[in-house]
Amino acid sequence: MRRPIVLAAVLLVLVQLQPARLAGQAPALRGFSSESLAAQRALEDKFRAVPDPARLREYMRAMTEEPHVAGRPGSKKVAEYALAKFKSFGLDAAIEEFEAYMPWPVERRLEMVAPVGRAMLIQEPPVAGDPDSTDNDQTPTYNAYSADGDVTGEVVYVNYGVPADYEQLEKMGVSVKGKIVLARYGGSWRGIKPKVAYEHGAIGCLIFSDPKDDGFFQGEVYPDGPYRPEFGVQRGSVMDMPIHTGDPLTPGWGSTAGGKKLPVSEAKTILKIPVMPIAWGDALPIFQAMRGPVAPESWRGGMPVTYRMGGGPLKMRLKLTHEWKHRPLYNVIVRIPGATLPDEWVMFGNHHDAWVNGADDPISGAVSLMEVGRGLGELVKGGWKPKRTIVLALWDGEEWGLLGSTEWAEAHRDELNGKGVVYINTDGTGKGWLNAGGSHSLQQFVSEVARDINDPRTGKPVLEVGRRKAIDGLPEAERAEAEKDPNIRIAPLGSGSDFTPFLQHLTVASLNLSFGGESPGGVYHSVYDSFEWYTRFSDTDFTYGRTLAQVTGTAVLRLSEASVLPFRFSDMSDTLARYVSEVQKLHAGKKDAPALDFAPLTAAVAALQKASLAFEKAHAGVPAASAKALQTQEEALKVVNQLVFSSERRLGNEQGLPRRDWFRHQIYAPGFYTGYGVKTLPQIREGLEEGQWDEARQGVTKVAAAINALAAQVDRASAGLSRVGR
Amino acid sequence: MRRPIVLAAVLLVLVQLQPARLAGQAPALRGFSSESLAAQRALEDKFRAVPDPARLREYMRAMTEEPHVAGRPGSKKVAEYALAKFKSFGLDAAIEEFEAYMPWPVERRLEMVAPVGRAMLIQEPPVAGDPDSTDNDQTPTYNAYSADGDVTGEVVYVNYGVPADYEQLEKMGVSVKGKIVLARYGGSWRGIKPKVAYEHGAIGCLIFSDPKDDGFFQGEVYPDGPYRPEFGVQRGSVMDMPIHTGDPLTPGWGSTAGGKKLPVSEAKTILKIPVMPIAWGDALPIFQAMRGPVAPESWRGGMPVTYRMGGGPLKMRLKLTHEWKHRPLYNVIVRIPGATLPDEWVMFGNHHDAWVNGADDPISGAVSLMEVGRGLGELVKGGWKPKRTIVLALWDGEEWGLLGSTEWAEAHRDELNGKGVVYINTDGTGKGWLNAGGSHSLQQFVSEVARDINDPRTGKPVLEVGRRKAIDGLPEAERAEAEKDPNIRIAPLGSGSDFTPFLQHLTVASLNLSFGGESPGGVYHSVYDSFEWYTRFSDTDFTYGRTLAQVTGTAVLRLSEASVLPFRFSDMSDTLARYVSEVQKLHAGKKDAPALDFAPLTAAVAALQKASLAFEKAHAGVPAASAKALQTQEEALKVVNQLVFSSERRLGNEQGLPRRDWFRHQIYAPGFYTGYGVKTLPQIREGLEEGQWDEARQGVTKVAAAINALAAQVDRASAGLSRVGR
Repeated sequence: MRRPIVLAAVLLVLVQLQPARLAGQAPALRGFSSESLAAQRALEDKFRAVPDPARLREYMRAMTEEPHVAGRPGSKKVAEYALAKFKSFGLDAAIEEFEAYMPWPVERRLEMVAPVGRAMLIQEPPVAGDPDSTDNDQTPTYNAYSADGDVTGEVVYVNYGVPADYEQLEKMGVSVKGKIVLARYGGSWRGIKPKVAYEHGAIGCLIFSDPKDDGFFQGEVYPDGPYRPEFGVQRGSVMDMPIHTGDPLTPGWGSTAGGKKLPVSEAKTILKIPVMPIAWGDALPIFQAMRGPVAPESWRGGMPVTYRMGGGPLKMRLKLTHEWKHRPLYNVIVRIPGATLPDEWVMFGNHHDAWVNGADDPISGAVSLMEVGRGLGELVKGGWKPKRTIVLALWDGEEWGLLGSTEWAEAHRDELNGKGVVYINTDGTGKGWLNAGGSHSLQQFVSEVARDINDPRTGKPVLEVGRRKAIDGLPEAERAEAEKDPNIRIAPLGSGSDFTPFLQHLTVASLNLSFGGESPGGVYHSVYDSFEWYTRFSDTDFTYGRTLAQVTGTAVLRLSEASVLPFRFSDMSDTLARYVSEVQKLHAGKKDAPALDFAPLTAAVAALQKASLAFEKAHAGVPAASAKALQTQEEALKVVNQLVFSSERRLGNEQGLPRRDWFRHQIYAPGFYTGYGVKTLPQIREGLEEGQWDEARQGVTKVAAAINALAAQVDRASAGLSRVGR
Repeated sequence: MRRPIVLAAVLLVLVQLQPARLAGQAPALRGFSSESLAAQRALEDKFRAVPDPARLREYMRAMTEEPHVAGRPGSKKVAEYALAKFKSFGLDAAIEEFEAYMPWPVERRLEMVAPVGRAMLIQEPPVAGDPDSTDNDQTPTYNAYSADGDVTGEVVYVNYGVPADYEQLEKMGVSVKGKIVLARYGGSWRGIKPKVAYEHGAIGCLIFSDPKDDGFFQGEVYPDGPYRPEFGVQRGSVMDMPIHTGDPLTPGWGSTAGGKKLPVSEAKTILKIPVMPIAWGDALPIFQAMRGPVAPESWRGGMPVTYRMGGGPLKMRLKLTHEWKHRPLYNVIVRIPGATLPDEWVMFGNHHDAWVNGADDPISGAVSLMEVGRGLGELVKGGWKPKRTIVLALWDGEEWGLLGSTEWAEAHRDELNGKGVVYINTDGTGKGWLNAGGSHSLQQFVSEVARDINDPRTGKPVLEVGRRKAIDGLPEAERAEAEKDPNIRIAPLGSGSDFTPFLQHLTVASLNLSFGGESPGGVYHSVYDSFEWYTRFSDTDFTYGRTLAQVTGTAVLRLSEASVLPFRFSDMSDTLARYVSEVQKLHAGKKDAPALDFAPLTAAVAALQKASLAFEKAHAGVPAASAKALQTQEEALKVVNQLVFSSERRLGNEQGLPRRDWFRHQIYAPGFYTGYGVKTLPQIREGLEEGQWDEARQGVTKVAAAINALAAQVDRASAGLSRVGR
């Protein structure tokens, strides 16, 4: 579901990598004793030799033969294919079924009523050379969780349809009340557009793909090139996911057949007005019929028409009805029980459901996960058992609102609360460089993994390629400073893929990884996201898919085997210091904001910085620890590790965020008005942005308390660790 | 020829308007004694009652019936129509004929040779509702003074085709050597594009009108709206006018039948490669066939195609041949001899030739000048005679390179040098607010004229409307300061209309005036610049045309009648101080520039500031001077006025500018690489911009000498004036 996000930049890591790079010696691995290094390296080498581009291609071809949208037979078929593969790798795999309340379009009508009657195409034509574009049972072009409705009205163009655009509309004296808004994709996650339109009184919403954003303006269109053709449509959910993800009728608990459900009338995440995605080929005749003032220059896109605000005789009719019912979700779950620490779970997931054939989104990531499964299966066949339990998951229903992962996470809430070490997520992946986002306590860990795996094209470490890219993207003045830092900086996570229930609801430390940046295109959520497209324009030889399997699999193996889990809290405290300074600046820039005392927050960050440095000092003893020492102190170490991995839990609280208590993480959240886009320190930042001063003030207290709790826990971990080190 | 330029802003005038606005009393007029005010006001009121929108419409309809490009019968017909009108107004009018070497297209071929053979349309189709769009004898779409040639080659897109674009091309490793460049209109005057292309080794040049700049991206296209339609073409001269204007074979002297001419091989202003203007409708299939890298985002325009740099199988053929010969030019000249100062000429001109029918460019301005003629004719019929000689001119051949005005100015060089008081220019005009450019010694004079004439829509003074517009266009921080200044700041002049031979070759103080800003469109130099277009989309009721006649006629009458010519040198010195500080900053920002001593320049400006203040002090006696005193001191006053109006001569010198000695003005010039766009202190500024350090250094000396000479002359004028005042 998620579009690749370019890696945020490097910098400012005060505590450096463990400096164990002596000549001729393999670099140290955080959390491993020097004695254990060789065995771990051998294990990883064995694993990394397994993933095979030919297999990735084979799985992708099979899994993208037919449309496989969640809730339909194609999705079950793909789940069963993956299940059979995992079993064939010698792994313990099963389908864990849930269900969710899901709409399937029954009637879709989009017509121009005036000045002339005219039906819109609202479907994606086949293209030459791509057999999958002629598949039967293609998912209709629609937005899941749109309301049913039959509305007729004038049309107003609202640019991206975000709150700032409505401020501009108000200045221009244009109202959307009683009208259908026409918004272009971009500037926010799509679900924000109908939500904000509804808040302003609109009766319907059309969202079109502007060729300026992902069509011919950017490059050649499919099938000649990778960009969106004239009648390519971006499907997608408009569920109000910034409130909660998963089944709209089971917020907070797992949704099973016959289980407890809210009445539909109490569902909070189903949209209130009908909304439909359209191609620019269908938007063009609407714009051609629009009158009224010419749109502001920055609102004008790439279609060959004068962009206007609307008015005049134009009227459109939008009619949508859906069959709403509980539909099954098939999560494929693989478990490799931990030999010594079975109650510590290292998890790695990717979804398998698509909007249509979904070669890029999500199968490119899913097949890479499957090769991780095969690699681990090979180790298991050789008699190996992980120290910690490894859980691999292929989720269903992600596209609709992270349905499969959310229901699974909610159903396993208590287990995950106690046992969840790290959740690693992938989704669609391409070629280019490593994009990494997640919990900042894992930032240094990501760099260390990326250090040890080579980019397939250049042969250089993935870390170096990603760092170079990030540094080159910086303003010239900042580059010299960035060069000094050997690590990459990871991005905070908003939403848009299955990490959300783990990270932001259950506050399990999480990572989201992909390769990208050199495989742009415009087939996202369309019929044209096909095997043909992927093998012509993205990771054509699957070498980056293999590299992603090596990166994620290596991460899983280090987390499962480490003596001390490789969290580094100084990266978290440095990052928090930056976020605090950002919200302080934001506050200073708000002329009408009352005074706000940030002292509790800066004190908490200072406490965490101090605790983090103490932890690093205690951690310095780990490399020298003998196998015997580690064994005799096994129980103490277990306590330390529990404190380390459950540290992320301290960053959440039961109250959650204002107006959306399902989101518990106090540091990272998807923006209430940006959707996928992250808001860090969300209660404070959004309180300031939206002028909710009391929320912001209470946010300072809540965030400071969370950070203080984390600092206290880190201190306890340090105390334990320093005893272990002796 | 000139496109309207938005008025540059207000500000910073240290010496204010003469503060004679006592309650109930008409404001003072600079250069008039209080005693003479009432008579002058009565004269002006009588004049201003004459111009009539219905007449403007009638002349325009007649003069735009047929295409009337210079060198063709239509142009002579229009000249004779105007001549007859002037005579019917009771004025002494005559056609003063010159000639110039002018190319007329014989063969124009533009074809795609590969990947498929295809001829381009290269003509403008008729449109519904505009009978003039079906006229016979429409000027072929071409660029005058293109070379003849027959070239076939690959195509490279060069954005605007200015030097900065070639720097970008070099970074991208793209060469235009041996290729045809495709440039879009905009970013410079058109003639710069083939000149720079030739300097980089291109063999041909195509210039297209991008819909982003003046087509559907901006608004509805003709005939539905004012913007350029798919096959609308911007014709225009590409003569190398930054070298010199006028007949390419008679630089510096008047071109008459049988007179002295350069051999064609020595002409400096005829282009070296074939160049052709095309519509975006013809550019689109070329772009569709282009391959190679996608163009940088800022280079992409509004056509529905992926903008690429070129390469691949695409080849174009461009073949142009012209009939080159001396063709006649018909300047219509009106003279109203001065009763007491016949050897002081106040001049006002506008061209009459067009690229096709030319309703906006130039007839809208020409008819306004004709109504000035009628108004002066009415005064003459009533027995009035001006003090100074008034010369009105309708120039021919302006579109080709200011041919008629240049040859006239060169032929009358000696007279103009001694007698030229001020040259006022107009060209196409629309609706909105007053745009004024020119010699800064006339800045306060322009404000005073604009103060006394009302805007037709708001009824407020033109000065106030223009000031308001200029202030609103400023950054918020600068507005309060600007509000304090009651005047408008006038823009420096580059080129693009007939003021150039007067201002920049002969250094006669000049003004260029128009209304505009609220009549945008995209019919410039096309068949669609018609009566129908103008009366639907520009100054539809000709009330701004009347207002322009009132402004220009009032200016003429004040200049012809003033006891002391209304120059104010403090505006010039303030403006020069600003320009000097600009070039100092420019120098400071050039890291590789050698040290440059600006002291002579700042000293010269200080001297001028001092002289200007002394002049204002001497001038303060003018209002109180009695009629008798003025009469007895007539001869002394004549000397003062000679010093005043010939002051602008001091700002030029015989050496002219580097590489273009025809351009003598040291303060204002069209940019060597911008064309119409002005470069102030051109030798210094362009020397610094182009890294010609010696030129810049010599420029400092030359400009300082010119300003010192002006200061000395102002001091002599002050001395004379203070004696007159006593």
